[in-house]
Amino acid sequence: MIVTCNRIPVNPDHAAAFEARFADRASLVDGMDGFVSFQLLRPQNPEDPYVVMTFWESEAHFKAWTESAEFKEGHARSGQLPPETFAGHPKLEMFEIIQGTALIQRVGE
Amino acid sequence: MIVTCNRIPVNPDHAAAFEARFADRASLVDGMDGFVSFQLLRPQNPEDPYVVMTFWESEAHFKAWTESAEFKEGHARSGQLPPETFAGHPKLEMFEIIQGTALIQRVGE
Repeated sequence: MIVTCNRIPVNPDHAAAFEARFADRASLVDGMDGFVSFQLLRPQNPEDPYVVMTFWESEAHFKAWTESAEFKEGHARSGQLPPETFAGHPKLEMFEIIQGTALIQRVGE
Repeated sequence: MIVTCNRIPVNPDHAAAFEARFADRASLVDGMDGFVSFQLLRPQNPEDPYVVMTFWESEAHFKAWTESAEFKEGHARSGQLPPETFAGHPKLEMFEIIQGTALIQRVGE
């Protein structure tokens, strides 16, 4: 299992618009092969970036997603946000889950 | 639901010892009130930090954990690693999960 974290610096004045743009994104990735979960993380400290976290069965599954039409569509949508939305360039980090306890969670619970 | 990410820069030569030190840590946090899950993330890019990711019902539950005897015990153990294990200081980031899909996962599946 891998986790990707796209770290996106967002200007606090534009945080609401940034969050709203994600509201209909999950449906694009939800059916991809090897997809496990998507989570949008809002930083408690406004100086930290937002993190778009996705879980995949393997790195190959994630790469296939980045080359898909659905990926292009989702990123075309977020590309419509004005440049001042962002406080810097995004940085993608990728990790392998090597230890852990069970994780059974739904947003809102 | 909140997520804490402790970003720990580790020298690649010491990664195996660092990972081994975590092998018996999960049992310390597992029974804490409000604890949801712990995940240890190994970076695919050696220049990125390891991330110790924990999920909690609330920030208050996380704070109670950091003030507990179990927390002190776990960190006393990792404090026994030689200083050259680390390539920099750890940085703690805290997030609220504001959107997402269901996440049902066990390590090794």
